[in-house]
Amino acid sequence: MKNVIVGQSGGPTAVINSSLLGVFKTAKDRGADIVYGMVHGIKGLLDRNIVDLSTQIKNDLDMDLLKRTPSSFLGSCRYKLPDIEGNEKTYQEIFKILKELDIYAFFYIGGNDSMDTIKKLSDYGEKIKSPIRFMGVPKTIDNDLAITDHTPGYGSAAKYIASTTKEIIRDGLVYDYPVVSIIEVMGRNAGWLTAAAALAKGEDCEGVDLIYLPERVFDLDKFLEKVGELYKQKRSVVIAVSEGVKIADGRYVCELADHVDYVDAFGHKQLAGTARFLAAKVAEKYGVKTRAIELSSLQRCASHITSRIDVTEAFNAGGAAVKAAFEGMSGQVITLKRVSEDPYMCITEPADVHFIANVEKKVPDEWITPDGTYVEDALIHYIRPLIQAEIAPLWVDGLPRHLILKK
Amino acid sequence: MKNVIVGQSGGPTAVINSSLLGVFKTAKDRGADIVYGMVHGIKGLLDRNIVDLSTQIKNDLDMDLLKRTPSSFLGSCRYKLPDIEGNEKTYQEIFKILKELDIYAFFYIGGNDSMDTIKKLSDYGEKIKSPIRFMGVPKTIDNDLAITDHTPGYGSAAKYIASTTKEIIRDGLVYDYPVVSIIEVMGRNAGWLTAAAALAKGEDCEGVDLIYLPERVFDLDKFLEKVGELYKQKRSVVIAVSEGVKIADGRYVCELADHVDYVDAFGHKQLAGTARFLAAKVAEKYGVKTRAIELSSLQRCASHITSRIDVTEAFNAGGAAVKAAFEGMSGQVITLKRVSEDPYMCITEPADVHFIANVEKKVPDEWITPDGTYVEDALIHYIRPLIQAEIAPLWVDGLPRHLILKK
Repeated sequence: MKNVIVGQSGGPTAVINSSLLGVFKTAKDRGADIVYGMVHGIKGLLDRNIVDLSTQIKNDLDMDLLKRTPSSFLGSCRYKLPDIEGNEKTYQEIFKILKELDIYAFFYIGGNDSMDTIKKLSDYGEKIKSPIRFMGVPKTIDNDLAITDHTPGYGSAAKYIASTTKEIIRDGLVYDYPVVSIIEVMGRNAGWLTAAAALAKGEDCEGVDLIYLPERVFDLDKFLEKVGELYKQKRSVVIAVSEGVKIADGRYVCELADHVDYVDAFGHKQLAGTARFLAAKVAEKYGVKTRAIELSSLQRCASHITSRIDVTEAFNAGGAAVKAAFEGMSGQVITLKRVSEDPYMCITEPADVHFIANVEKKVPDEWITPDGTYVEDALIHYIRPLIQAEIAPLWVDGLPRHLILKK
Repeated sequence: MKNVIVGQSGGPTAVINSSLLGVFKTAKDRGADIVYGMVHGIKGLLDRNIVDLSTQIKNDLDMDLLKRTPSSFLGSCRYKLPDIEGNEKTYQEIFKILKELDIYAFFYIGGNDSMDTIKKLSDYGEKIKSPIRFMGVPKTIDNDLAITDHTPGYGSAAKYIASTTKEIIRDGLVYDYPVVSIIEVMGRNAGWLTAAAALAKGEDCEGVDLIYLPERVFDLDKFLEKVGELYKQKRSVVIAVSEGVKIADGRYVCELADHVDYVDAFGHKQLAGTARFLAAKVAEKYGVKTRAIELSSLQRCASHITSRIDVTEAFNAGGAAVKAAFEGMSGQVITLKRVSEDPYMCITEPADVHFIANVEKKVPDEWITPDGTYVEDALIHYIRPLIQAEIAPLWVDGLPRHLILKK
């Protein structure tokens, strides 16, 4: 018996289900008996909330739909495993369930926190000399994982951001009076997503005028000065700003507003509103028309516009994890390694999870212009291959069709 | 000599350039010499800011790009012509310019205000016995024009709203704790766009739970009560709300917030924020996680996801306007007439501009459920054919390619 189990964790991406398919299909192709899915990640496993994926993915059409389905097919969780020391009970429970299910290999698709789960499980497994293999499959739109050239999920988010930014730029030019549009992009600590707005620029597009990443301190006065110069020169000014930009004293820009929208159930101050705050400041100072546009959760769930490179790499990362596990590896994460710049070529490579979990990769300083208001060409060249080619939705009755979990 | 001139006015749609192409191509096919474009509508004409469209649209590829280009290719304006009486000078100036350009027919692509322009120009033309024909080509994402079954631009906006709503619904289900997502949709006075969120529901989608249109008075207490019931029953609650919903005393819901973001250059209080306000109220009352998602200007400029029915009808409306003008008509607007429900078939028909200009068509009361929290099937059946079929972007280097005006 070779049963395997797979889960998804953290915030979803538009291609996280391609990785799930990569695990499912490769495991089946390589002789796995049952491929179980944990519903809502490791938390679902602890609740014994699991499904046999063969009852969900029944044919080729289901596979093609799964690749095009946004959000995590199996559901997700934000549950972080406790430290092993002093919490052996949790680990004993997990391994007991895995034994009951006769699990040969365990796959977890996720970001930083999820790789921590793989690290802890494989460490504990080694301690108790368990034969179960634990493999991580990376995903995150934030592109902030260490070692890997980039993360599956980033390319599609970047393509969505660049495409919609192009459309917003055209839209901003429609009237004959000045408009300042501020686009707010996800990324609390790393500016990879916001940087993707730079891709809009080309033969048929003026591009955005300013880009602000969280890697640099945000100076409100300098920002207003810059906008003041720009809107006098051109009809439409478009600015991309990360939701995570902070001023010198460490406060988020969106915290500078006089009001807080609300504090959520977890006590987190609702932080969205960076673009809104800046648009208000610009309108106040210059009396110019402004628009604040939050790209919101569509950045991670707009599966109607994905990058085929990203879809393929996400699938491959899942498949490579299975291959590695079936060949005896454990405690590893599949990374992407760019072996050629031009033409772009990328291969998968397993890496020790201890070097990846809990490390956050930011945009290198030399890829941001000295004044911190745009990105360098090197960064654009890095992103460009990741948004290439498309995978059209399967349209049914006018809308993209998805595959959903049957209970 | 048969020169014609065409302009675009008001807020753009994803298919307003298909109507421009319909005018250009049909006029050329029917023997027009020069097809002029007014840059920034009637205001551009008064400034003698015009282009020969043959210098812009040079070949088949340009035509296919134009169909896929968001925003108004020629630029737009919000300029409303003054009443003829007492303002003859403006009209004399316009007709002088048209005479200089040897204009045979004048086409204006726009919404309510733009049809008012056609009305006034044709009235004045009749008064001075000008041989110039004036024809209106309807467009607006708002779908609020009288007489016509629907307006070009609405179908694509509806398809964008329904598609992204489906994605947001999937995304909302990812975690295993309750989330209330509130999607804010455009439409100040008419709920056509918000109603399109209802299309998300189907075999592979749970659909939205509540829909609030501006045609009904919004009751905040009842809303909170309804949400309170729902989030206890299901993990993810998704609500579509029009930006224009008002409470019983006539104030917009977004005006109820303690703060105003800002007053813009035209003295308009910045009204966006309905979803934000409601999300804050829900979070405050129930301590549940909420998300406020504004679909923003992408509703009118997301040309990467358009309805082919809409693109074709927009083109046909432009072409039919030329045909009518060349056959001697003036002071008319092209309307769409649904001649069959199933199978869906629609033809164009000219209508007297006096019956269309300045009239606003709202969602009929019987198409909204009695309690005002959803729409009836009849409304869904009305919209469904308008979002059918697709027109894929022309992808260049990973992004949709557009045609832009060369100066």
